[in-house]
Amino acid sequence: MTGLFDERIRALASESPFTGPETLERRNGQAFATRLGANESVFGPSPKTIEAMARVAADSWMYGDPEQFELREALAEKHGLAAKNIICGVGIDGLLRDLLSVACAPGSRVLTSLGAYPTFGYFATAAGAAIETVPYTADFRQNWQRLTERAQELRPKVLYLTNPDNPTGSYHDAGSLQTVLADVPDDTIVALDEAYCDFAPAEAIPPADLVRPNLLRFRTFSKAYGMAGARIGYVIGDPYAIAQFDKVRDHFAVTRLSQAGAIAALADVDHLKRTIAEVAKAREQLAQVAENLGFAALPSATNFVAIDLGKGGEDCRKIAEDIERRGVFVRRPATEFLNRTLRVTAGTATDIERFGKALRSAVNRLDS
Amino acid sequence: MTGLFDERIRALASESPFTGPETLERRNGQAFATRLGANESVFGPSPKTIEAMARVAADSWMYGDPEQFELREALAEKHGLAAKNIICGVGIDGLLRDLLSVACAPGSRVLTSLGAYPTFGYFATAAGAAIETVPYTADFRQNWQRLTERAQELRPKVLYLTNPDNPTGSYHDAGSLQTVLADVPDDTIVALDEAYCDFAPAEAIPPADLVRPNLLRFRTFSKAYGMAGARIGYVIGDPYAIAQFDKVRDHFAVTRLSQAGAIAALADVDHLKRTIAEVAKAREQLAQVAENLGFAALPSATNFVAIDLGKGGEDCRKIAEDIERRGVFVRRPATEFLNRTLRVTAGTATDIERFGKALRSAVNRLDS
Repeated sequence: MTGLFDERIRALASESPFTGPETLERRNGQAFATRLGANESVFGPSPKTIEAMARVAADSWMYGDPEQFELREALAEKHGLAAKNIICGVGIDGLLRDLLSVACAPGSRVLTSLGAYPTFGYFATAAGAAIETVPYTADFRQNWQRLTERAQELRPKVLYLTNPDNPTGSYHDAGSLQTVLADVPDDTIVALDEAYCDFAPAEAIPPADLVRPNLLRFRTFSKAYGMAGARIGYVIGDPYAIAQFDKVRDHFAVTRLSQAGAIAALADVDHLKRTIAEVAKAREQLAQVAENLGFAALPSATNFVAIDLGKGGEDCRKIAEDIERRGVFVRRPATEFLNRTLRVTAGTATDIERFGKALRSAVNRLDS
Repeated sequence: MTGLFDERIRALASESPFTGPETLERRNGQAFATRLGANESVFGPSPKTIEAMARVAADSWMYGDPEQFELREALAEKHGLAAKNIICGVGIDGLLRDLLSVACAPGSRVLTSLGAYPTFGYFATAAGAAIETVPYTADFRQNWQRLTERAQELRPKVLYLTNPDNPTGSYHDAGSLQTVLADVPDDTIVALDEAYCDFAPAEAIPPADLVRPNLLRFRTFSKAYGMAGARIGYVIGDPYAIAQFDKVRDHFAVTRLSQAGAIAALADVDHLKRTIAEVAKAREQLAQVAENLGFAALPSATNFVAIDLGKGGEDCRKIAEDIERRGVFVRRPATEFLNRTLRVTAGTATDIERFGKALRSAVNRLDS
C-alpha cells in the first residue's frame, strides 16, 4: 500500500480535532448527566426551528437548495448586505475547510494563535499548509499586534482570528480589527471567526457591512441559535472572495431540514434574546462557582467561561478527568499555558450546580 | 487581489456540478409540478425515518456523534463487516471530496469515464488533480476494459467507477470488478460508486465483504432510502484506507437528525423493499412512455431511465428545455454522445403521465 494515498496524508495521525462527548461516554461506560463541554446551547433551538424541521422531515427525499437562496436572502436582509456577500456551509468547520481549499496549496503558510480553535489547524494540515502560531498574552488574549507583525514578515495565505475568542472568552474591540486590516499584507486573507458574536458586547463586533477584499467573517447557527447538530454556518465577505467558495464547496451539503430550521431561527428574535440573557446569567453563576472555590473566572464575551485553575497542566488534567468521571462534560484546552484553564459552557442552574459540585470534589481530591 | 486565493483556484469558474431544481424554478418563474431530474426518491423516506428525525429535532442543540458510532455499528451488522470498515460522511459527494483530499495533491492524475458523475470531476479539479477520461461504449456502458488498460499506462491515484452507472443506468456484473481489481496497478485506488446498488440485479453487486487495500465502495441513503436532503452516505473499505478519511474529513458534519434518520431507515426493511418495487414498476412505465413515442429506453439497474432520443445534442437540448418549461424537471447529460439522452427518475404514475405528456408535446413542437 506504499503508493496509496498522498504522501502528506500518510504522515498524519487519524484523529478528530475534538473527541466527541459520545466517545467519552462509551469510553467511560456512562452517559454524561451534564453536557457543558462543546459550547452548545442547552437552551435549545427556537421552538419555531424545531417545528420547521419536524414539518419538512418528510421532504427529506429532496436535496436541499444548493444555493441556499432563501436563507441567504434572509441573512442578507438581517445584515444589510446582498446575497452575493454570503455563502452557506456545513457550520464554520466546513467553511474553514472550504477556505483552506481555496486559499492554500501544499506548502502554503497560515498564521494563528497558539491554542486557537484546533479545527482550523486540522483543516490547514489536511490542505498541506504549514501553520505558524503566536502565543496568547499573559492575560489570555490573542496577541493581535504580534500576529499582525508576524503576518507582515511571513505573508501567510490566511491569518485566522477568533473574536470573541475560544477557548478564553476574551475579545478585541472593533477598532482592533481595523488596525489589523490596515497593517496586514493585502494578499493575506483575514479569516475572522465570529461564532460567539451574539454573546459579545456591541463594541466587539464591527458593523456587518464592513467588507474588505481580504476579510472573511465566519458566523454560525451552532451557538446562540442552538443548532449545533444541524450543521449550518455562513461567511460574510466581498463578492469576489465569496465566489471562490463556489469552486470547491459541497454545494448540496447543507441539509433541507437545516435550511428550513435556520430560516425559522432568524425569524424568532425573541428566542435569540432569551438565550443571550440566559447565557449572561449563567456566566455570572459560573464565575461565582469559580470564585467560591478561590479560582478566577476569565471575563467572557461568549457562551462559556474559562476558569483559571492556577495550577500546572498536570493538576488541571487530573481535575478535568475527575469532573468527567463525575458525569460532567467540560473541556480543558490541550495547549501549554491555556491548559491550566477549564472551559465550561453556559448551562441551566442545575447544570451549573452539578458542575460546581464536581469541581469542588475534584479539587478536594487533588488536595487531599 | 492578485495574491488572494490559490493560483489553481483563481483559474476555475464558480459553479456547481449540478444546477438545482430550485435555481431553475427561480429562473423560470414557476415551480416544477413534477420533480424527476435528480434521482431522488419520490416514494419518500421511511415513516420511521421521518418520525425519528421529528423526534430528535429538539436535540439539534447537540452536535451529532463525530464517530457516527451507532450508525456504523448498524451498517457493519447489515454488511457483515466491522465498524472499522466503514466511514460516514455528508453523502457520496462529501465522501468523494474526502477521497480526493487523501488521495491527491495538485498535479495528481485521476481516471474516469467521459460523462461520469460530474461531482467526481468537480472535486478532483478542486484538489488540483488532472482528470483523464475514457468514452462510454456505443451501447452506453462504461468501458471498464479500456479504463483498466489506461490505468495500467497512467497509474492514476484514483480510478472512479460507478456501478450501476449514472447517467445511463447500465451495469457491469460483479466478476467485472474482480477483473478490474486484478489488473489495475496496486497503487491506484478503485473508487466504486454504488449509489444505485439497491435497485440492481444481484449479479451486479459484489458481496459486501469484498474488501481490498485499494478498493473503496461508496454507498448512500439518498437513493433507495429516500434521504437525499439529509446528506448521509458511507464508504466500505479496508481499515487502513478507511482510517485515512479521519485525517481530512469534517468529523462533525453529519447532522444529529440525519444520523437518527438513517438508523431508523436501516431498521425499516419493508419500506426499502416497497421503494425498490415501486421503482421497478416506474422503470417499466417510463420505458413504455418512451417506446410509445418511438424512442428506446436504455435498460436500467437504477432508479432512473435514460431515454435515447436518437437526436443530436441540439435537438435534445430543445426537447429538454421544452419539458422543463412544461413544469417537469428532468436532466440531460452535458457530455457529447450521452447528451442525446434524457435521464428521467422513477416517479408515481401521475409523475410519469405528466412527463409523458410533456415529452410528447416537446417532440411534436420540434417536429412541427
